[in-house]
Amino acid sequence: MTGKSLLIGLSTLILLLSSCSTSPKVGSSVPYKVKDGVIVLDTPKRPEGQKSALKMACEPIDTVRVGFVGLGMRGSGAVYRYTYIEGVKVTAVCDLLPERAEAANATLEGRGFPKAREYSGEEGWKELCESDDVDLVYICTPWLLHVPISLYALKHGKHVACEVPAMMNIKDCWDIIDACERGRRHFMMLENCCYDFYEMTALNMAQHGLFGEVYHAEGAYIHNLDYVWDQYRGNWRLDYNSKFRGDNYPTHGFGPICQVMNIHRGDRMEYLVAMDTKAIHGAEVAKEKMGIDTFADGDHTVSLIRTRLGHQMEIHHNVYAARPYSRMYQLTGTEGFASKYPVEQLAVGPNPEQFASKEVFDSLMAEYKHPITAEYEAKARKVGGHGGMDFIMDSRLIHCLRNGLPLDEDVYDAAEWSCVNELSRISIEAGSMPVAVPDFTRGEWDVLDGFSYAE
Amino acid sequence: MTGKSLLIGLSTLILLLSSCSTSPKVGSSVPYKVKDGVIVLDTPKRPEGQKSALKMACEPIDTVRVGFVGLGMRGSGAVYRYTYIEGVKVTAVCDLLPERAEAANATLEGRGFPKAREYSGEEGWKELCESDDVDLVYICTPWLLHVPISLYALKHGKHVACEVPAMMNIKDCWDIIDACERGRRHFMMLENCCYDFYEMTALNMAQHGLFGEVYHAEGAYIHNLDYVWDQYRGNWRLDYNSKFRGDNYPTHGFGPICQVMNIHRGDRMEYLVAMDTKAIHGAEVAKEKMGIDTFADGDHTVSLIRTRLGHQMEIHHNVYAARPYSRMYQLTGTEGFASKYPVEQLAVGPNPEQFASKEVFDSLMAEYKHPITAEYEAKARKVGGHGGMDFIMDSRLIHCLRNGLPLDEDVYDAAEWSCVNELSRISIEAGSMPVAVPDFTRGEWDVLDGFSYAE
Repeated sequence: MTGKSLLIGLSTLILLLSSCSTSPKVGSSVPYKVKDGVIVLDTPKRPEGQKSALKMACEPIDTVRVGFVGLGMRGSGAVYRYTYIEGVKVTAVCDLLPERAEAANATLEGRGFPKAREYSGEEGWKELCESDDVDLVYICTPWLLHVPISLYALKHGKHVACEVPAMMNIKDCWDIIDACERGRRHFMMLENCCYDFYEMTALNMAQHGLFGEVYHAEGAYIHNLDYVWDQYRGNWRLDYNSKFRGDNYPTHGFGPICQVMNIHRGDRMEYLVAMDTKAIHGAEVAKEKMGIDTFADGDHTVSLIRTRLGHQMEIHHNVYAARPYSRMYQLTGTEGFASKYPVEQLAVGPNPEQFASKEVFDSLMAEYKHPITAEYEAKARKVGGHGGMDFIMDSRLIHCLRNGLPLDEDVYDAAEWSCVNELSRISIEAGSMPVAVPDFTRGEWDVLDGFSYAE
Repeated sequence: MTGKSLLIGLSTLILLLSSCSTSPKVGSSVPYKVKDGVIVLDTPKRPEGQKSALKMACEPIDTVRVGFVGLGMRGSGAVYRYTYIEGVKVTAVCDLLPERAEAANATLEGRGFPKAREYSGEEGWKELCESDDVDLVYICTPWLLHVPISLYALKHGKHVACEVPAMMNIKDCWDIIDACERGRRHFMMLENCCYDFYEMTALNMAQHGLFGEVYHAEGAYIHNLDYVWDQYRGNWRLDYNSKFRGDNYPTHGFGPICQVMNIHRGDRMEYLVAMDTKAIHGAEVAKEKMGIDTFADGDHTVSLIRTRLGHQMEIHHNVYAARPYSRMYQLTGTEGFASKYPVEQLAVGPNPEQFASKEVFDSLMAEYKHPITAEYEAKARKVGGHGGMDFIMDSRLIHCLRNGLPLDEDVYDAAEWSCVNELSRISIEAGSMPVAVPDFTRGEWDVLDGFSYAE
């Protein structure tokens, strides 16, 4: 922040600000201050005796006993996928609706596995978390149940895998982190897009230096959900969006680029600014489906994040758009470029100002295929789940649990990728003021040297 | 800006801010205050007796006598193009270097036209502006000369056409606007990209409602200039970028989308936030070419702008990138979508979640070809100048001057499109604080009903 006085033909006026300025009031899940024009949320002190969960390893589990909570769109598919993964036993299934638990068991039986215990009702998940034959609670419920169930499962000594977004606000982030650090259990947010083929290959290229220093990265979740709103029981997703502005679903576009940017592994996010549009189509859909007249979430939301190393990330959210799907993944580096939407492209080598030809692109994609992709690819494509990435994600999770390895996506990733929802809302409600991004590692963001998969 | 207290499982804390907060100090060309977390620049009161230049028409000029100032990369090409335009007489040519004025005259003679008067030296442009056989001063000098020459020409009763960016800061914007409003002369910034084929066609589609309400628009200038830095005499462009952070070259990506968004013709920009990366490649190039160790302009800069109608625009700047060119032009509306980079695409009609096929795309592009494009197309492609758009721009300018019509791009456009440079710098220097965008029409932004071309 330097003033400059180099304008030709006029004198630059450097004005000292009056020391007082009124600032907007925003809703925040934790206390905050405004300092030098930046909204800064309080970071709770790490409780005595509690230590970092960075690269945390737990005792290996020979056969991972899994209990599924939430058997709707995502959970029912997960149960099916797990019947293809070795070293797993599905011991419990739970949903608000008993018929969904029964259907999950039909899936298990159809694939030749024994039935799991069934739980249902508003609090069936509590019994599941309390049971002693579950190592991993796998949560695919509506968003607002993610944190209560996760905390309950962690409290009962379970590892947790939770659908996106794992946390809905900053208080949630700290609660889950504290529960993991204290209880020494894993928490993985199920960010499947980190395991997609293009993203894994581009990450591998980045780690081999093909793009040089990656200083600008873009992610997006642009997906018209008109065809799917009715599948969210009681319109819970529309209901949430009707109440909250901001990027309420940031992680698919954000997780993969954070891995490339080595977030909390040598770099950290410093501040975020966000801007939305007014609510147009979202408001129309909510009016039609729910009969409500107010709708908070703007149709299009953009968040910009600057990092300690002077890099930047940009995230878009639009689940209302009259336009084609884009889960943008774009990397700009000092030596090359990768972009996934609207077409997969690469620009690397001696002339990165030109896109690689189809032939060169295919050859690079094959040469830099990620070893993890290569390991699971054939089976993943067969089992499916968003083209195979879900299967690779689940396989890696179970592999790490069985071998006592740190997980690929740790609890700090979950917090960092999820926190865009509340931070973008705060920034937007404050007229796009910058918001400092909490350091969820509490000072240990540069202990690790880059993102890596445990082997 | 409303607080919300709907979080489930926790109480939302609404904190009243302490009434004081320190705010950063930024360099600004006009005085400013910080109000409610927004940097607000003073708007000078319109001087007594001076009136708006919106849709200003001047007396028709049968043969437009043009004087060119600056005959480098852009100016020499412009002289050549003008030999293909009817109703024009090139009466004067001027450059710092006499040999360039001579070369321009060789161009004129080669095309069968009489020689123009030649001016050269540091202040040759003053004599040109003072001469009485020039109606239009056409400025293609280094950036920092744009405003001094424009003001001098306007003061001497000339119309002005000036290369991009026309103004380098907010004070410049007000000075030029005041000179036009007072002297009733035209000022057009030569934003050629508004006349490119895809942009004109998409604008026409937007005005025919194919995209519905366009609420999100993107523009960019991403262009690795490594091959061209040496052509800027004395490294003036690198020198400028070494001194100023921010988007120093916003208008190519911004002008075309502002036309679609009807800026100062029913909508107006309310505030801007910007974020850059650190300077990496720019700093390397400047070190190599100029031997300097400090470089202000970050490699990648993103600016976000929100409008009164609740729409948003996003602009990228990167002239250092190891990646392919992108002058993004993207529109997202309630009924359709258009995007120019990396491939030209459309998604309109009953199923805008799918891109139009090649066949449908071609048919739409033909059906909605802009009448102005259709009128000039054949000759434009022959004469060239960035694929023909330069010729269409020049032809329209001369057409309007000859017929006493308001110009397509008025002085408020020039200010709005140029102001991103200083506003983005201010925001960035203040840690991405929002900056209110001045209303250059001084309250008349909703007098006109949408963007239109005078006929």
